[in-house]
Amino acid sequence: MTNPFEYAHARDDIAWMAQNTNHLPTHPLVKERLREIVDSGEYSKYPIAAGLDELKRLILDDLKLPEYDLHITNGGTEGLYCLMRYLLPEGSQMITSDPSYFIIHKFAKIGGAKTTDIPIYGNNFRYSIDEIKKAITPETKAILLIDPLNPLGTTYPEKEIKEICDLARENDLWIVNDVTYRDFAPNHVLTTKYYPEKTIVVYSVSKNCGLAGLRVGALVGPKDFIKDIKGHMSADLGINILGQHAAVAALETKNEWLPGMIKTCNLNQEMIRDAVEMVPEAYLPVYPSAATMMVIDIEKTGINGNDIQNELLYQHQIFVRAGDYVSATFGEKFIRVSFSIPTSDVERFYEQFPKVMEKLKR
Amino acid sequence: MTNPFEYAHARDDIAWMAQNTNHLPTHPLVKERLREIVDSGEYSKYPIAAGLDELKRLILDDLKLPEYDLHITNGGTEGLYCLMRYLLPEGSQMITSDPSYFIIHKFAKIGGAKTTDIPIYGNNFRYSIDEIKKAITPETKAILLIDPLNPLGTTYPEKEIKEICDLARENDLWIVNDVTYRDFAPNHVLTTKYYPEKTIVVYSVSKNCGLAGLRVGALVGPKDFIKDIKGHMSADLGINILGQHAAVAALETKNEWLPGMIKTCNLNQEMIRDAVEMVPEAYLPVYPSAATMMVIDIEKTGINGNDIQNELLYQHQIFVRAGDYVSATFGEKFIRVSFSIPTSDVERFYEQFPKVMEKLKR
Repeated sequence: MTNPFEYAHARDDIAWMAQNTNHLPTHPLVKERLREIVDSGEYSKYPIAAGLDELKRLILDDLKLPEYDLHITNGGTEGLYCLMRYLLPEGSQMITSDPSYFIIHKFAKIGGAKTTDIPIYGNNFRYSIDEIKKAITPETKAILLIDPLNPLGTTYPEKEIKEICDLARENDLWIVNDVTYRDFAPNHVLTTKYYPEKTIVVYSVSKNCGLAGLRVGALVGPKDFIKDIKGHMSADLGINILGQHAAVAALETKNEWLPGMIKTCNLNQEMIRDAVEMVPEAYLPVYPSAATMMVIDIEKTGINGNDIQNELLYQHQIFVRAGDYVSATFGEKFIRVSFSIPTSDVERFYEQFPKVMEKLKR
Repeated sequence: MTNPFEYAHARDDIAWMAQNTNHLPTHPLVKERLREIVDSGEYSKYPIAAGLDELKRLILDDLKLPEYDLHITNGGTEGLYCLMRYLLPEGSQMITSDPSYFIIHKFAKIGGAKTTDIPIYGNNFRYSIDEIKKAITPETKAILLIDPLNPLGTTYPEKEIKEICDLARENDLWIVNDVTYRDFAPNHVLTTKYYPEKTIVVYSVSKNCGLAGLRVGALVGPKDFIKDIKGHMSADLGINILGQHAAVAALETKNEWLPGMIKTCNLNQEMIRDAVEMVPEAYLPVYPSAATMMVIDIEKTGINGNDIQNELLYQHQIFVRAGDYVSATFGEKFIRVSFSIPTSDVERFYEQFPKVMEKLKR
């Protein structure tokens, strides 16, 4: 059996429910702008190192943080890499959860920092204030607040955001507010609202705008912080100019395409819920999800998540993800499915998931 | 007076002699491929994280290192950033020169390493073996060998490459062989020839292929090393897919466009030499250059390099670079000019440089 990513990339009939990428149409202006820049040949120059002014302005507008500053990064990923190395010296600690987006934990550990990996699968499927409080030590430098949370799709009510901010302030911690999926959360509140002085927002154009393959993101923070971290960023000569122009076009037209996209995602969520309800003992711990993915708890079915992933992918070209990628402790309890994809692909999941589960049960 | 980069980026009549970027035509297939991928919309997916197989194969073929492995990076820059953090723990040291491409030194210092900055302006304008030997301490982990060297355009004869390799082996050091400009060096020898076991090659598609704005590079090294550094790379989700496809197209067709490009560069060098000969007391320390740039020594003219940069840029839209960007100690002695640009732009330099120098002299 070949590597699932190699298998999926070699085909054009895959339902991409594995990477939370957004495969829904944005706006024709994106392609148009890309074609223009390709034709211009402008890409033989370095981009201006700080990033296109227009892009920077659009990102701050989108977040409604005009007083902040930012670095444009090669996807949120590169921003997180540099940020972890900058914020977390050897021996320091960051508050994190399990499940979580573990790549960030890995980046923290490369520099010799520790992560707390507070177990949150169960109860509210998000941090409780008391557990954060208990986990803080003199070495703690930051709280990683992924909101909405990949993989669970949970988000934080405003009251809890405020409590987390108060706690961070009492302990002089940074909040790393990874808001990659915020466009899909109905009442999202940035921690900048209650803790403007030490919030760093990790921003992704990949997820809201469907440009994952162009790798455009940003670190957004207070002006002084952005100045201080400048010498620690890796994109010293700027990031891919085609990605920047595509991001500008997508953000310029966001009001036109985002509402339809959210509607589709909601419809897709319902269809996944209906499919899960047909499977005895499988259930959705968090529904609706506030992100573009959710998890399906399969523990009581007795079926292995990797078997489900493999059967759906290799037999039906539906690519979902076993949970061990995003949880060390709970990975066997669930699979993760993302739904920012055409509804016709979710229909295929709806049809096959119950059958696959029945087959694997035998 | 506005920031020179902002000024230059806002215009379309600039002769780009400031960043060693390559503005010469490559092959129509590059644009064609870019258009295809834009039309396909493939960019809504993440690229396969390890990079396109085809691109990896083409890079190893280009270097004639089929037994090596590599990571595709967001330009050579990102590869260098991650490499420095991986190779050089706090308190360690790397052999470097002055002048040099100082961004790499900066990346080393972020992690608490030191650089030796051996003065090489004068004599051979490159490392002497004895000076490297003297600079090695128990903390030394690596030799940074930029060959050809930005900004001087010097390259190392095979005999010296072998000596440096022997010295590295005796002291168990890594060689970071930054070969960004090797396509322009007539008899270039990689250190892999004599020190295959501990050479890391830093490779750039930007410079040979004229795709600086697409940010495509690679770290190439022994298979074990590439495996070991994997967890320390920042591009965990791969790099921009358009950049990767453009790089494939450029490398596939390299035999068709590189010879003409080298011819143009040689012609351009001659024209710059002729211009410099018209300026009393200015001279070329290294001629011909083995890269796409060279330095013009202006010390004895008594004219300030930044004044020359400003006058040429703001009065004549010719963008050269004052030396302080690439040398702490010798930056006032020279300006740097790159010439992988259309000959018509070099003609403008030929015409204006002597006049500007005469004007500034008064």
